[in-house]
Amino acid sequence: MKKTPFPLSKVYTLLEPGPVVMVTTSGADRANIMVMSWHTMIEFEPPLVGCVISNRNYTFDILQATQECVINIPTVELAEKVVGCGNTSGRTVDKFQTFGLTPVSASRVAAPLIDECYANLECKIVDGSMATLYNFFILEVLEAWVFPSAQPPCTIHHRGEGAFMVAGETIQLASRMK
Amino acid sequence: MKKTPFPLSKVYTLLEPGPVVMVTTSGADRANIMVMSWHTMIEFEPPLVGCVISNRNYTFDILQATQECVINIPTVELAEKVVGCGNTSGRTVDKFQTFGLTPVSASRVAAPLIDECYANLECKIVDGSMATLYNFFILEVLEAWVFPSAQPPCTIHHRGEGAFMVAGETIQLASRMK
Repeated sequence: MKKTPFPLSKVYTLLEPGPVVMVTTSGADRANIMVMSWHTMIEFEPPLVGCVISNRNYTFDILQATQECVINIPTVELAEKVVGCGNTSGRTVDKFQTFGLTPVSASRVAAPLIDECYANLECKIVDGSMATLYNFFILEVLEAWVFPSAQPPCTIHHRGEGAFMVAGETIQLASRMK
Repeated sequence: MKKTPFPLSKVYTLLEPGPVVMVTTSGADRANIMVMSWHTMIEFEPPLVGCVISNRNYTFDILQATQECVINIPTVELAEKVVGCGNTSGRTVDKFQTFGLTPVSASRVAAPLIDECYANLECKIVDGSMATLYNFFILEVLEAWVFPSAQPPCTIHHRGEGAFMVAGETIQLASRMK
């Protein structure tokens, strides 16, 4: 199954439910992966995403240097690998190799897509002015990819301390909310 | 059943999974309710929450004037009322009355808690400097309340256009992530 481009105007539907994501960056020595739950949509189109990446993380330094990353969205099958990535630092570990994840070249940024994730968002920093005070970055999604599927994805959602809620059933209501 | 105070150091466990929330504010004429999915934790303690509240919303004006709000977290039983609040504007509708929701006095802010929601976070704006550019506010949670329960809450998570994912099962992994 091949991924297909996903309309930028619909990117909010991927991030708004609050899934755990894996942020990839392209470091001088190797590509890195950071697990992240602190993100929010900021604007629909072009899609802007706000996220907190701590200055204690290796990813912070790479992101500051390269201004680019990929937001990869895993489903529950990858939960053990997600936790593995979250428990280690890219300063000492090659996470792609250690956790058997496959880097795939992105089209617009140097950071790799994680092939096993059901969706990938290629991003560049558009506003880093809140990085010093809040470790907060505003990213623009330049290109998005998904596995086409009729089923909603079984994303995982961190409840803290290793507890993850797995996405349940989807209900449809008569909402006029975008 | 009575709500009990919830430790501020654990507030992130309520918001990190990405639930739809209802933001209450105390307007000059009446209290208002706005439905919101664009929020993220910014810091653990004191808990800081970043959120997007559009300047097209009535809540934006009240928030700018009062600098206070409450983030109320509903569960799936309230889904129809959530959508009702999302489809109407507080400029013309008293949402508490129209949707049969119960305002309860907060302890630290003028905005009311929604009694029917399983958790309530009393907040004040600590940084409104990104409101003009991004409609983005940083709030500090001053006080938090929850219904004590052994079961994880059945929160709802917006997938766009009226589709909501309902929180499914919780899995526990050997994570060292906070």
